[in-house]
Amino acid sequence: MRRAACPGSFDPVTNGHLDVIARVSGLFDEVTVVVGINKSKDRLFSVDERLQMLTEATASYPNVRVDTFQGLLVDYCRANQIAVIVKGLRAVTDFDYELQMAQMNAGLAGIETMFMATNNMYSFLSSSLVKEVAMYGGDVSGLVPALVLDRLTAKLGRN
Amino acid sequence: MRRAACPGSFDPVTNGHLDVIARVSGLFDEVTVVVGINKSKDRLFSVDERLQMLTEATASYPNVRVDTFQGLLVDYCRANQIAVIVKGLRAVTDFDYELQMAQMNAGLAGIETMFMATNNMYSFLSSSLVKEVAMYGGDVSGLVPALVLDRLTAKLGRN
Amino acid sequence: MRRAACPGSFDPVTNGHLDVIARVSGLFDEVTVVVGINKSKDRLFSVDERLQMLTEATASYPNVRVDTFQGLLVDYCRANQIAVIVKGLRAVTDFDYELQMAQMNAGLAGIETMFMATNNMYSFLSSSLVKEVAMYGGDVSGLVPALVLDRLTAKLGRN
Amino acid sequence: MRRAACPGSFDPVTNGHLDVIARVSGLFDEVTVVVGINKSKDRLFSVDERLQMLTEATASYPNVRVDTFQGLLVDYCRANQIAVIVKGLRAVTDFDYELQMAQMNAGLAGIETMFMATNNMYSFLSSSLVKEVAMYGGDVSGLVPALVLDRLTAKLGRN
Amino acid sequence: MRRAACPGSFDPVTNGHLDVIARVSGLFDEVTVVVGINKSKDRLFSVDERLQMLTEATASYPNVRVDTFQGLLVDYCRANQIAVIVKGLRAVTDFDYELQMAQMNAGLAGIETMFMATNNMYSFLSSSLVKEVAMYGGDVSGLVPALVLDRLTAKLGRN
Amino acid sequence: MRRAACPGSFDPVTNGHLDVIARVSGLFDEVTVVVGINKSKDRLFSVDERLQMLTEATASYPNVRVDTFQGLLVDYCRANQIAVIVKGLRAVTDFDYELQMAQMNAGLAGIETMFMATNNMYSFLSSSLVKEVAMYGGDVSGLVPALVLDRLTAKLGRN
Repeated sequence: MRRAACPGSFDPVTNGHLDVIARVSGLFDEVTVVVGINKSKDRLFSVDERLQMLTEATASYPNVRVDTFQGLLVDYCRANQIAVIVKGLRAVTDFDYELQMAQMNAGLAGIETMFMATNNMYSFLSSSLVKEVAMYGGDVSGLVPALVLDRLTAKLGRN
Repeated sequence: MRRAACPGSFDPVTNGHLDVIARVSGLFDEVTVVVGINKSKDRLFSVDERLQMLTEATASYPNVRVDTFQGLLVDYCRANQIAVIVKGLRAVTDFDYELQMAQMNAGLAGIETMFMATNNMYSFLSSSLVKEVAMYGGDVSGLVPALVLDRLTAKLGRN
Repeated sequence: MRRAACPGSFDPVTNGHLDVIARVSGLFDEVTVVVGINKSKDRLFSVDERLQMLTEATASYPNVRVDTFQGLLVDYCRANQIAVIVKGLRAVTDFDYELQMAQMNAGLAGIETMFMATNNMYSFLSSSLVKEVAMYGGDVSGLVPALVLDRLTAKLGRN
Repeated sequence: MRRAACPGSFDPVTNGHLDVIARVSGLFDEVTVVVGINKSKDRLFSVDERLQMLTEATASYPNVRVDTFQGLLVDYCRANQIAVIVKGLRAVTDFDYELQMAQMNAGLAGIETMFMATNNMYSFLSSSLVKEVAMYGGDVSGLVPALVLDRLTAKLGRN
Repeated sequence: MRRAACPGSFDPVTNGHLDVIARVSGLFDEVTVVVGINKSKDRLFSVDERLQMLTEATASYPNVRVDTFQGLLVDYCRANQIAVIVKGLRAVTDFDYELQMAQMNAGLAGIETMFMATNNMYSFLSSSLVKEVAMYGGDVSGLVPALVLDRLTAKLGRN
Repeated sequence: MRRAACPGSFDPVTNGHLDVIARVSGLFDEVTVVVGINKSKDRLFSVDERLQMLTEATASYPNVRVDTFQGLLVDYCRANQIAVIVKGLRAVTDFDYELQMAQMNAGLAGIETMFMATNNMYSFLSSSLVKEVAMYGGDVSGLVPALVLDRLTAKLGRN
């Protein structure tokens, strides 16, 4: 069985993330979307909220699972027989850091990393831009799924 | 069956190419190394020579095939039930052009493109550098497999 | 009167070019689309054909003119009271060369250069990719206006 | 009337900013220099101090106004009939993030963004470098206008 | 006497740093490895610990000295008759910021900056990645000298 | 004796090249400016003309020599006891290719490569831009030394 992992913080999941997850689900037998737990960083949504949004948003893909990890991603992958990490890339400057991480992960643990170009419809899209725009009352309805939009509105106290 | 294509001109195949091909062969059920035939470009080795070197150099991977294509790579992929193109990347500036090609291929034909970081031992390595160094009598024995080294020496008339 | 120039080779004009021209026409009083004549480069379409396609494709914008230039673009701009050159950019690596040209043009002649991000729908699009795809019978109908598609088909002898 | 906005934090305004503002003032009928108010970030100068420095430093350009904005810049632009945001760019890596913001602003609100190359005399210059150098007693007299130099000296308690 | 400085925070020194220091020591008469003291940043090792690790790790190079600096690096260089700062670079995105600093340092104080490509064996390596991996119990024994490994283990309370 | 090489095609030498050569001459005991002889490329000036212009333009630096090389630069360096190649860089995209060459040269022959930021006054400047501008009658008097300007004028048949 060929397994891939799609890691991220997904705070919250966007249409750009979902586009990558859907495409990866067509290329591997099982895809695990893994939410990294990193206590030192401020997040808008709790880990549980992020897992729940991801689970709902990927419900139509039978070979997509959702999980969390703590510590090193490569340790998680080895423990779960996942051979490859897949990342969506929006821009060139992303790639440089990611390439370093990929070489480190291959060197440390033999886990491969593959990159996919984000659909250009979403090339400007990131969780932090979504939060910044939503916080000031901007319209993000085309950028996240409806179930995320509802929670963003509730969380930020706006209509 | 999950099939991937590794396209290139492979003039000649280097240890960097072989590193990527070996890693891809572990991630998909079948990998086709495809040599693009482009009459307008000058090549050192003929298409037949390049196919033969690739076939010998990948002989130990039972799920790796070697083939040629003419025209659009995405047409070749569709005709051969190949869902994904895999490319090794050596450097950031590569990525930008490749990302445009990937978006075009996805838009034209629904063929995905995935990128893998070249092993950093080979990050400086390219077919054209190998040829340039060999032409001036430099030592390329660590950069290409022995079977390529022999043909380079024969072709360039040096010992 | 505030005048801008949109220079290029437009061999042929694409939907990406037209998106930039349309947006620039909303920001300045007059926009001149200028086709650079450079005898040393191979082109698919003659200068006259390119001018004709541009003229037809921009007919709905009353403040857009089409012209040719030879020599230095900054000399053309000074002779035509054009204060600013506007360029669409598809990707980061474009920018570096363009920034050098912009500094040179400002230093030589006091002509400013401004850059606009290409609409991300067209971020993978270029005249040379259009020609390459069309040459192999790929479908470019979403990438160029209908009047260009007809001429590409006629020129390349395909249906 | 053709209006442009030059946004920034201007903490403090440098000769690089002023070079861009002067050049933009020659290309549009009215230019508004807008200071973004972001309570979460530490600043050396208060918003009032930054406004005052900008007002004095741009006093010789009759079509330049100075203002503040809170929230989304595109909302400010729409409310003030400003069609285009102009940004100076010092380096390639700047551009990638800016291109994403530009695509987001165009998508959200139809506000265009144009980029200008910073004069290469100032390509190394930023407000944060000015502050870092001044804090350690380095000479920044060629990097900021005299009126800013006086306030920096007063603020940092040095002669 | 031709003197060079290799500045950094070295928290802790890695095999990548040592590779650069060794190569620079062959190109200049005296090399000073300088640890910048910056109170505002969190560090794992104290300045004294970092100096001690650097001193031990460079003991076999007779022309390498270790020192600290506070304030502007160019002031340190001038006070110590050091004509050139040498930096190792791992990746393209590094370079852009470094180029701005180099132009600033040359403009402020006439101190030159030279860059060397990091050995590609260490192109993925940084102090922060070492710390992150070690914190989660990953194996960093090939990435830092043994004397650093011991201190990392002691500091992080792991075996 | 510490020797450095500054390689290039210098067709013709510009003020940007001379700025780098002057700065390198202050950092090493002897600097050899080496003109690569590459028969396959079109050049405006012959090798002899380029050598003569370089010799005149660097006459005031007693530790600068001018020479030619054919074949691999690293072979030239080893034969002439030159330990380090120094290159000026104008822009980020330059660096990526150069970094690959540097790693190749270090791997093949143990010759180090160091990079210096071009003075930002000359960051837009290249031999090919100078030739293009001069060919169309543009003013390049601030971009090349007077002795090069005379030869350009003579060569291109203009006053």
